[in-house]
Amino acid sequence: MGVHRNALTGPVRVVGTGLLGTSIGLALRQEGIDVQLSDVHDENVRIASGLGAGSPARDVPAQLVVVAVPPDQVAAEIEAALVASDGIVTDVGSVKSLPLRQVGERVSKAQLERYVGGHPMAGSERSGPLAASAALFDGRPWALTPHPHSAPAAIDLVTELARLCGALPVTFTPDEHDRAVARTSHLPHLLAALVAGRLTDAPADHMVLSGQGVRDVTRIAAGDPGLWQQIITANAVALTDLLREVRDDLDLLLSAVHRGERSAIVGFLDRGVAGTVAIPGKHGGPAQAISALFVAVPDHPGELARLLADAGDIGVNVEDLRIDHDPGRPVGLVELTVASERVDFLQESLEARSWTTHR
Amino acid sequence: MGVHRNALTGPVRVVGTGLLGTSIGLALRQEGIDVQLSDVHDENVRIASGLGAGSPARDVPAQLVVVAVPPDQVAAEIEAALVASDGIVTDVGSVKSLPLRQVGERVSKAQLERYVGGHPMAGSERSGPLAASAALFDGRPWALTPHPHSAPAAIDLVTELARLCGALPVTFTPDEHDRAVARTSHLPHLLAALVAGRLTDAPADHMVLSGQGVRDVTRIAAGDPGLWQQIITANAVALTDLLREVRDDLDLLLSAVHRGERSAIVGFLDRGVAGTVAIPGKHGGPAQAISALFVAVPDHPGELARLLADAGDIGVNVEDLRIDHDPGRPVGLVELTVASERVDFLQESLEARSWTTHR
Repeated sequence: MGVHRNALTGPVRVVGTGLLGTSIGLALRQEGIDVQLSDVHDENVRIASGLGAGSPARDVPAQLVVVAVPPDQVAAEIEAALVASDGIVTDVGSVKSLPLRQVGERVSKAQLERYVGGHPMAGSERSGPLAASAALFDGRPWALTPHPHSAPAAIDLVTELARLCGALPVTFTPDEHDRAVARTSHLPHLLAALVAGRLTDAPADHMVLSGQGVRDVTRIAAGDPGLWQQIITANAVALTDLLREVRDDLDLLLSAVHRGERSAIVGFLDRGVAGTVAIPGKHGGPAQAISALFVAVPDHPGELARLLADAGDIGVNVEDLRIDHDPGRPVGLVELTVASERVDFLQESLEARSWTTHR
Repeated sequence: MGVHRNALTGPVRVVGTGLLGTSIGLALRQEGIDVQLSDVHDENVRIASGLGAGSPARDVPAQLVVVAVPPDQVAAEIEAALVASDGIVTDVGSVKSLPLRQVGERVSKAQLERYVGGHPMAGSERSGPLAASAALFDGRPWALTPHPHSAPAAIDLVTELARLCGALPVTFTPDEHDRAVARTSHLPHLLAALVAGRLTDAPADHMVLSGQGVRDVTRIAAGDPGLWQQIITANAVALTDLLREVRDDLDLLLSAVHRGERSAIVGFLDRGVAGTVAIPGKHGGPAQAISALFVAVPDHPGELARLLADAGDIGVNVEDLRIDHDPGRPVGLVELTVASERVDFLQESLEARSWTTHR
C-alpha cells in the first residue's frame, strides 16, 4: 500500500467483534494497521485479540470507526462514534436506509458528513469471532452507500478499507442497495424459510423422498432467526413491496395450477429460467459457458482426492464441485462444473482412467 | 442375483429412451437382461442402443414393460402396454394418482392388476439418452406405488427392477406419494421459480449483490419448463392444497413484515429452521453431526486436488464439498463438510500443511 492522500493508516476502531468485525481486524492487521477492538461482550474482544485481530480499545482517536454490530444496534453505534470522535465512520450492516435516517435525525449535518455506509457481501452460516478469517472478503463485492452529504474524503477512506480487506467496492445509494438486497438476499431467505416451514407438516416417512433440489432451496433457511428478524424488520419497506409482488405472482400461479392453465404455468416457469440466467457467474451469465459432468465416487477417504488429482493431471480447472451424497449410500455422485469447451475432453480422459461418468 | 420366484429375467421393454429409460436399460444390461427399446423418436433408440442400453424393440413378449415417457403420455403408454401384452407394467413418472385413475378408466380390472407405479428419485439437469448412466439410481430411493388391485407378483417384480438398478425401494400409496413430492419437490421448484422470476425485474447492476444464497435457492428453477409444466399439471390437486397453505403463510408474513411484528417474524423463521432439520441427511438429521471447514484455494488446476489429497492423507472423509467461487476472484473458498468429531483434527492438520482455513 503506497502512502497517498486518503491512505488508511489507522488506528481503526472496530465496534463489535463478531464474524465481520473480527475478520476486518484480521485483514487490517495483516497490513500492519493498528486495530482497536470493542464489544459489549468482553469475552468476544478477548477471543478476537487472541486471534490477532487487534488489541482491546484504548482511549486513542481513531482515523476510522467500523461499526459491526447486529442490525438493531447499528444506528446507535454510528451515532455514538460520530459524536465521540472526529474520525470517519462506516458500518457493515445488511440494510442501509433506515440506520442512515435514524442517525440523520440525531446528529448534526457536519457530523453526518463523516459517515459512509458499507455492506460486504460475505458471511458464513457460523457467527462470532471464532468463525472469522482475514480471507472472508477476498474477491467479494463490498457495497458502499454514500449519502448526499458524505464527504469525498470519507468515501475514499471507506473504499480503501474495502480494498485492504481484499473486496471489490461497488457503489449504490442506500435505497438502491436495500432494494437490491431485498431481491437478491432477503426475499430468497424468506421463501426458503417458507418452503422449509411447510416441511414441518410432512409425515417423517414422506421426507425420504427429499432430493438435492429441496436441500438447495432450503439451505439458507437454517440461518439464525434472531439475526434475520432484525435484517428483515430493518428492510421492511423494500421487502413489503416485493412480498406484495410475490403474493400477486402466487395468486396467479395458484389459479393457473388449479385450473390447469398450461400456458400460464409455462410462462411462469420460463420467467424463472430467465431469472437464473440473470445471476452473474455460475448460473450462466453470458460470458461463462459451463457444463456439468457427473462422476461416481466410492465413499472412502482419498477417493475424491484421487478424482481431483486426475482432473488436475488432465489439466482441466474445476470451477465448481458438488457431492450428491445421500446417507447410507456407498457411492457418491460428484458433479464437476467445468468450462463447456473442456467437458468432452475431461469426460473422455476420466473414463480412460476408469472413472464412471455421465453428463 | 439368485433365481427365485419373482426373478426379473427379461425381456424388459423400455418405452421412452430418455434419461431415465436409457439409464434403466444400461443398468439391466449390466445384469445380462435382454432389454428392448422403443421411443417415438427413432434417433433416441439408436443413441440408447448405441450406448449399450438394449436393442430396438422386437415382437417378443416382454416380462416387464417400463414406461419412461413425459408425464402427459404416461397413462396412454401404460394402457397400451397392458392391452398389448400379458407382461407386468410399471412407469417412472413423477406423479402417480392421475395416470392410475386414467388407466383405471380404460382397462379391465384384470389388466390393471398387472400395473404397479414407480418413481425413482434420480434425475439430472440434463435430459435425453446421452445424459443416461447405469449408476443414475445407485443408492437413491425408488418409490413404488401399488394400488389396491396390484398383483403381489407384479409388486415383487417391480421391486426387483428397482433393486437391480441399485436403488432403495420404498412403498407409498399413489396419493401419499403425490402429496409427499408436492411438498419435497414440486413446491420447492415453483417457489424457486418465483424467487428467480422476481430477479428478472432487477436492474443488472443490482445483480452484482447476488451471493451463494440466491444461487442455491434458484438453481432448480433452471429446469425444463415444458417438462415441469406437465409434472405440475398432473399433480395439480396436491399442489393446489399446498399452494393455498403457502399463500396463507405469505399473507401472515407480509402482514408481520409490514407492521414490524418481530415475534411473528421470528416464529416464521424458527419454523423454517425446523423444516431444514426435518430433511434426512445433510441438513442435520439427528443421526449425523457434521461440521463445515472453509479453506482458501488458489484458482489453478490441481490446487483443489492437492487439498483433497491432503485431506485424504490426513484420513478424514469429506462428506460434502462446495466451492464458493465468484467470477474474477483469484482465490476460491472451499467448504468441506466432515463429521463433527473430525473437524478440529482436519483443521489443525490442514493448517500444519500451510492451508488457510476458517470455521
